[in-house]
Amino acid sequence: MDKLDAIFAPETIAVIGASTQKGKVGHDIFANILSNGYKGTLYPVNPKARSVLSVKCYTSIGNIPDPIDLAMIILPPKAALASVQECINKGVKGIVIVSAGFKEVGGEGADIEKQIKVLCNKAGVRLVGPNCLGVINPSPKVSLNASFSARMPEPGNVSFISQSGALCTAVLDYAADKGFGFSKFISIGNKADVDELDLLRYYHKDPDTDVVMIYMEELSRSAEEFITEVRKMTSGTNPTHVIAIKSGSSAAGARAAASHTGALAGADVIYDGLFTMAGILRCKTVNQLFDYAQAFAGNKYPTGDHVAIVTNAGGPGIMATDMSEQSGLKLAQFSEETITELKKYLPSTANFHNPVDVIGDAAKDRYENTLATVLADRGVDAVLIILTPQSMTDAIGTAESIVRIAENTIKPILCAFMGIVDVSDGVKLLQKHKVPVYQFPESAARSLGALREGMKWLFRKILPPYNLVYDKEKAGRIIEQYLSQGRFVLGELDGNEILKCYGFNILPMELAKTADEARQMAEKLGYPVVMKIVSPQILHKSDAGGVKVRLENGKAVETAFEQIMENAKKYDPDAYLEGVLVQQMAPAGKEVILGVTWDPVFGHAVMFGLGGIFVEVYKDVAFRLSPMGRNVARRMVKSIRGYPILKGLRGEAPSDIEEIEKNIVSLKALVDDYPVIRELDINPLFVHEAGKKTTVADIIIRLDDSAQNQCNGGSSNA
Amino acid sequence: MDKLDAIFAPETIAVIGASTQKGKVGHDIFANILSNGYKGTLYPVNPKARSVLSVKCYTSIGNIPDPIDLAMIILPPKAALASVQECINKGVKGIVIVSAGFKEVGGEGADIEKQIKVLCNKAGVRLVGPNCLGVINPSPKVSLNASFSARMPEPGNVSFISQSGALCTAVLDYAADKGFGFSKFISIGNKADVDELDLLRYYHKDPDTDVVMIYMEELSRSAEEFITEVRKMTSGTNPTHVIAIKSGSSAAGARAAASHTGALAGADVIYDGLFTMAGILRCKTVNQLFDYAQAFAGNKYPTGDHVAIVTNAGGPGIMATDMSEQSGLKLAQFSEETITELKKYLPSTANFHNPVDVIGDAAKDRYENTLATVLADRGVDAVLIILTPQSMTDAIGTAESIVRIAENTIKPILCAFMGIVDVSDGVKLLQKHKVPVYQFPESAARSLGALREGMKWLFRKILPPYNLVYDKEKAGRIIEQYLSQGRFVLGELDGNEILKCYGFNILPMELAKTADEARQMAEKLGYPVVMKIVSPQILHKSDAGGVKVRLENGKAVETAFEQIMENAKKYDPDAYLEGVLVQQMAPAGKEVILGVTWDPVFGHAVMFGLGGIFVEVYKDVAFRLSPMGRNVARRMVKSIRGYPILKGLRGEAPSDIEEIEKNIVSLKALVDDYPVIRELDINPLFVHEAGKKTTVADIIIRLDDSAQNQCNGGSSNA
Repeated sequence: MDKLDAIFAPETIAVIGASTQKGKVGHDIFANILSNGYKGTLYPVNPKARSVLSVKCYTSIGNIPDPIDLAMIILPPKAALASVQECINKGVKGIVIVSAGFKEVGGEGADIEKQIKVLCNKAGVRLVGPNCLGVINPSPKVSLNASFSARMPEPGNVSFISQSGALCTAVLDYAADKGFGFSKFISIGNKADVDELDLLRYYHKDPDTDVVMIYMEELSRSAEEFITEVRKMTSGTNPTHVIAIKSGSSAAGARAAASHTGALAGADVIYDGLFTMAGILRCKTVNQLFDYAQAFAGNKYPTGDHVAIVTNAGGPGIMATDMSEQSGLKLAQFSEETITELKKYLPSTANFHNPVDVIGDAAKDRYENTLATVLADRGVDAVLIILTPQSMTDAIGTAESIVRIAENTIKPILCAFMGIVDVSDGVKLLQKHKVPVYQFPESAARSLGALREGMKWLFRKILPPYNLVYDKEKAGRIIEQYLSQGRFVLGELDGNEILKCYGFNILPMELAKTADEARQMAEKLGYPVVMKIVSPQILHKSDAGGVKVRLENGKAVETAFEQIMENAKKYDPDAYLEGVLVQQMAPAGKEVILGVTWDPVFGHAVMFGLGGIFVEVYKDVAFRLSPMGRNVARRMVKSIRGYPILKGLRGEAPSDIEEIEKNIVSLKALVDDYPVIRELDINPLFVHEAGKKTTVADIIIRLDDSAQNQCNGGSSNA
Repeated sequence: MDKLDAIFAPETIAVIGASTQKGKVGHDIFANILSNGYKGTLYPVNPKARSVLSVKCYTSIGNIPDPIDLAMIILPPKAALASVQECINKGVKGIVIVSAGFKEVGGEGADIEKQIKVLCNKAGVRLVGPNCLGVINPSPKVSLNASFSARMPEPGNVSFISQSGALCTAVLDYAADKGFGFSKFISIGNKADVDELDLLRYYHKDPDTDVVMIYMEELSRSAEEFITEVRKMTSGTNPTHVIAIKSGSSAAGARAAASHTGALAGADVIYDGLFTMAGILRCKTVNQLFDYAQAFAGNKYPTGDHVAIVTNAGGPGIMATDMSEQSGLKLAQFSEETITELKKYLPSTANFHNPVDVIGDAAKDRYENTLATVLADRGVDAVLIILTPQSMTDAIGTAESIVRIAENTIKPILCAFMGIVDVSDGVKLLQKHKVPVYQFPESAARSLGALREGMKWLFRKILPPYNLVYDKEKAGRIIEQYLSQGRFVLGELDGNEILKCYGFNILPMELAKTADEARQMAEKLGYPVVMKIVSPQILHKSDAGGVKVRLENGKAVETAFEQIMENAKKYDPDAYLEGVLVQQMAPAGKEVILGVTWDPVFGHAVMFGLGGIFVEVYKDVAFRLSPMGRNVARRMVKSIRGYPILKGLRGEAPSDIEEIEKNIVSLKALVDDYPVIRELDINPLFVHEAGKKTTVADIIIRLDDSAQNQCNGGSSNA
């Protein structure tokens, strides 16, 4: 038996702080449990009352003569702390603290929350909250509504986790209005103990939950742990579909970043990476959350991209077509048999091609025949049915036909029954039979697109990992040396040496102290060359006029040397100028950017995107976290909008995408080996034609400046 | 009196084809007029019935003893045609044909529609439809529901135009559910006579209409006429706000295009240009359409970007913050006075900074004081109020406070009352007083962003037009020559000559027939040079290996000549090779693309975007139509996402944006002068630093190949 069963399906509940005064939380929660048919036994605890709503009241939980599974505590912080101790003494299995005034207000409240957490952990009692709305389990076996909300939702196969109590009430109202059913519903508040990952684990094992909706404000624990576990839940033959809405202002502006990667790493784009890696579908609005949940709750999935649209009105059919295409779907091309068959049933003014227009005067038989016919077409993976209320429209009859056909097909059928009043009986019937139904065709089409995305995740290709070998020790010696000297920024020379240890392709280069040396080196390296200032104080070499490219002869090199030194002196008169780097010019390639940033919540995040000025304007980059591997890197590269540029436009040769994947995996290995690395930019990395690898054209590495002596504390070493 | 008054506010109506049989359109429309309190007089016409719903029936409209303003015709096409003639004989002022079977089915139906249109035009009678849902005017003075829909909406200040009848019914249902009121409501069907522009004109003059919602499938008339007129309606001191949803699959794929511009010119992006030029706000979904209409119907507008958020729950406050920022708004920074004032009313656990959290137990006084305080802050341009149902929440009381305050401020207040049932009384009160209210904070924030966009349009800067002089005759002689020879594709040499006539900056160039000639020309022009194949058969010179850049000396030029000729021969052995163009290399600059395409519906559309491979992948381009001018060009350049690149990133000098604007205006003048031009690509156009103009680096022009003799048929000449 899972410990969270005591929260979701307790046989006995004590409501500590149950009140006789209507409108108080301690009264309302007790009343909501009592009046919604809870199948267990309920005990109010209140030293000042003899009974609450006619139920005998106890002065303390210790005085209840029976064992208690769940204690609901509605008391101010200090009293709650004392009560938690009593609950533990009594041997309760789970505690929900509804009251606020804890961590979210800081000070004493935060201290008390910590103490409560320690008590519960030691006693092995699971704690939900504090500062939460409560818990709901509409299953007829339990019928528990231990929440602020007087309305008990219908039972269903969707479970909900909310970090915001206030949102819960609104969501319950909204769900009631839409006839949306829930399996389990919980508000997790401050997450002192039970958090989203605990609940995902529980829901994943729950036979009554197929889909989980999460409203999340921030992740409670290690991103790596979360991703690793949730990815398993959302994959395989018995997946739980997880749909999330995440809010939280991007803190990007607040963070001072020396690198491009750091500047682009807003919390929001990193959460995009987190959700993508975990197989969680992210929504932007609560409406979308419900729309997608309904689609997944139908438990039918398209095995291809091709949709058939059946409508009794042209306009909405076009809207569905547009949104289908925008959502990554394609309109199915019907077989000749299908069209011949459609002609048997439909009037000559109908459109027999996709989208099929059954015409405004269609009654239910025309819908039924059309739906059956297009479903039978092997080129159709899913059907969108649009019904608008017109004079001959039979919403309930059509809904019955759809339900009948839906029960005998594995292809998903999504409906848009437009209008609220006229079509409501039909809508209710569809909802009852788990046929997803929406108010407007664009919502239905977008939800089908989401279903298809979910299928692509489920059936993603998984390739064996790359077997890459690194010279970890050599890289360590370089980093060690910097740290021991109290230096934290590695320039190109040493940065390149480290990258070389991790399999990156580096250009031959030498450091010149004089113009004459520079010319000699260039002649040895071969023209054309690139020259760049080397100074620990000058990070943005281009801004300082410290870079010259495509130098074709000795004279140009000598002139460039003098100019670079002069520019650098002007840029920062105090900078120590080590000299000028003379480097072979990279062979032609596409510019991409690869980087790493570090954040206390997420750890290291790797960034990939197209390089050049476009990275700043189009922000076409993706972030990924641990655990990194070939498959993550592959999907990461594919996820940027500019991917077609790498695949090769207009017959151009494709770039070496596999090498980019290897570089991403290796870069993550580097920061796993040396977590003291805080920021890293390879900008640009030149990507050559397939088979011809990549070349690092510039690199900067910044180490943790509080980490003088921890070079070998790498997590992958531990 | 406007002729459309006969449609929206007739004193007498004849329903021709009124039926005694329930469920028939002819019955239902008659019944809907009769039962919804129509203030005028209603006459059924049906030769076979003595009365319909107890109202005396006439055998023909001619037999009605009184004058008739509006005839509603529900008859099959042939009978409808005869009836239209009778109506005209009778002297009706307006006709609505509800029945289908006309242009949309083609054949005889389409012919009859044309005949009806001609009859009405000759008689000066306005015709709505055929194939439409009808017309509704909920104003108590008229109270007309001449539609399929039994539900009469509330009166309001929003009018609706729908090209889809089916969508109307759904929209009416949806509106009834949301308590959304309408001023006028019409379904325009096939638009044989009355179309969206007629109705926009009428609504703009209508004192009861402040906002117009349009559902459009395609434009009925000249884009230039539409833009010119609608732009006036949406501007000035008494603007009509127009919000549109446009559907219609992009036909981009279907059109074979020789140019980049042509390839990118899907109908959808051109409609974006059309709406932008007309000052119409475009929505993606019906939900958004309602959300935005509600915001504009409130008739209060933010004069700046700064929003204050007041909430009783943290999570929804964050959601509102996120969506505000995504919608182009900024969170206001409160003055110290405001914070001092807030501290007087709010508990110490509240957040006094924006977003203000009044805490879950806020009753109405706390909301009222907070709202008044933040509204008084001069740094606040608008307020979003979020209310979630919690134990102490007083939705109706809070709504009363909001209404009271809203009546005394010019700043917009938008509300999100979350939940449906618990807060519904408050929501109804807000709706009644035209305070925009939404279900979720993200909808409220997005709608406020739309309001702000509307304000930016209204207060846009208008600069005097550029005074540009062209050598139109010279350009005409070149085009003439091509047409007279039956040649329709102009390459670089002649293309450049034409652009020069329109003020473009062209690089010196010469055509070499031999390698030796090429070297001599290069020496005259000065190194480095660019060389390109010239052949009428080779349009995509790069694909043919026909371009070499940055040639630095005579030897390189000679080698390049031989290679280019060889590549071109290989690419197309049948191509006639005129020689190789030797051209000065363009000075450094940003690559942009300028182009023109032509479409029978829109006429010439000008395209602008960032050039290079990015134009293909990010599709960051904008299209604009006639009438073109400095202000349109200016907003066009600003509208692309890559605009910051032109403004200058990281302290880089800005590009010569004004010159781009002039180039756009001039390009449009060229195609207006010579509409025989069908496609034109300047790709790339190099834009230099501000003040240093632009340089054409490549040009291709394609003429209308059916236009041998119409060079001088230019519209601007006509």
